[in-house]
Amino acid sequence: MTQWIRFEQDGREQFGALEGQDIQVHEGSLFDSPRATGRSVPRASVRLLTPCQPTKMVALWNNYRALAAKLGQSEPKEPLWFLKANSAFHPGEAPIRVPPSYAGKVVYEGELGIVIGRRAARVSEEEASAYIFGYTCINDVTAVDLLKKDVTFDQWSRAKSFDTFGVFGPVIATGLDPSTLVIRTVLNGDERQNYPVSDMFFPPARLVSLLSQDLTLEPGDVIACGTSVGVGSMKPGSEVAVTIDGIGTLVNRYD
Amino acid sequence: MTQWIRFEQDGREQFGALEGQDIQVHEGSLFDSPRATGRSVPRASVRLLTPCQPTKMVALWNNYRALAAKLGQSEPKEPLWFLKANSAFHPGEAPIRVPPSYAGKVVYEGELGIVIGRRAARVSEEEASAYIFGYTCINDVTAVDLLKKDVTFDQWSRAKSFDTFGVFGPVIATGLDPSTLVIRTVLNGDERQNYPVSDMFFPPARLVSLLSQDLTLEPGDVIACGTSVGVGSMKPGSEVAVTIDGIGTLVNRYD
Repeated sequence: MTQWIRFEQDGREQFGALEGQDIQVHEGSLFDSPRATGRSVPRASVRLLTPCQPTKMVALWNNYRALAAKLGQSEPKEPLWFLKANSAFHPGEAPIRVPPSYAGKVVYEGELGIVIGRRAARVSEEEASAYIFGYTCINDVTAVDLLKKDVTFDQWSRAKSFDTFGVFGPVIATGLDPSTLVIRTVLNGDERQNYPVSDMFFPPARLVSLLSQDLTLEPGDVIACGTSVGVGSMKPGSEVAVTIDGIGTLVNRYD
Repeated sequence: MTQWIRFEQDGREQFGALEGQDIQVHEGSLFDSPRATGRSVPRASVRLLTPCQPTKMVALWNNYRALAAKLGQSEPKEPLWFLKANSAFHPGEAPIRVPPSYAGKVVYEGELGIVIGRRAARVSEEEASAYIFGYTCINDVTAVDLLKKDVTFDQWSRAKSFDTFGVFGPVIATGLDPSTLVIRTVLNGDERQNYPVSDMFFPPARLVSLLSQDLTLEPGDVIACGTSVGVGSMKPGSEVAVTIDGIGTLVNRYD
């Protein structure tokens, strides 16, 4: 297993493999035989960036049985999704910003993120795992009062795409079996979400296969797999931490 | 007025200013003082690319009075929009592909596209024009049977994001007054759309200002301003041409 991290130091964007308290710096492309430079830097000395730079983030709605049961939603026949704007992508550690243009409720949604490693167009479910580079933690921040504000048009992309609302990281972990993972979200020290990936309607390989029938997935693209029960609102000053064992903890203040 | 075009020749992606039958090749950034190289190439000798590479395409729904009246929709209180996936971006001339994974109706939607020239975050309507680089033609291709296929979740992004469904170009024209423009769409030689930009609920400067309150717009980002009456379906073999005088004609086959 490798935990890939991207960071800024001395004004340069770099990436590497996290090993204990240090980052083994690499060069080249993360998705195409990255080369170790032999140089290492202390993790604590760098500024965290998003672990990759997706060309798109596809985000699922209604992908967990427990949340569907709670909300009275039936099992979807196919993945139901929207896009989060690239301008919203945001790393751990830096504050999620309270939108100046929106006064309603803002919620966290802890999620598993799939990171694509190879261009995927119309791949089968059997092939799909080979196109998955690894997994990351996501906080799919949502201005929830916008979703149904207009009765004629649900505003999914807008509610999810305020600047800093596309939080993911801190690393991309490779070599994990996603079916064993558990997502935990802690708000101001209280655990609010604790749910297993195994409760998904569409597990990762099936998602990648189904999405890739319609649109090409590029290396670094992220699929936010949807959330389950325990979503709640953030207040200015809140701290939210999304933890997936084997990946790490994505922590942000909301300010 | 300048008409900026991006193209591929001899395996190199380049851009320049269209002058008559030739392209005056430039270098540097299109959005930051591009420099003329003194070299020119015949337009007919190059392969057209999308005129820029957006980090996102924001696409409006219900932005024209005539179409709202026809469909019985009321005037929206604020811009209603979705995102088209970057993997769908597609230039003129190359065929729009029939999706292998979808057997339903596919429609053209001729639209005006706004191209952002400077990073825009929370700009006023008065300032907004200075953030608009120019205008382009769009065919916002839509797998329309998906939109309401699932009764619990309208699939806007999916219906609009099949590979090759984000058609725009052939150029970005600068120095135009958008309020005078007219969009015409011709299907297999028959004019199907002919409507003025002046019929918009949210005209370009207002759109840029309102969108930029929520999410940062980057140079090269495109806002598809929505369509009006005359939308219709394409069949394999159809040719669709979207013309805006001063910008040009965006032509594609559907195959």
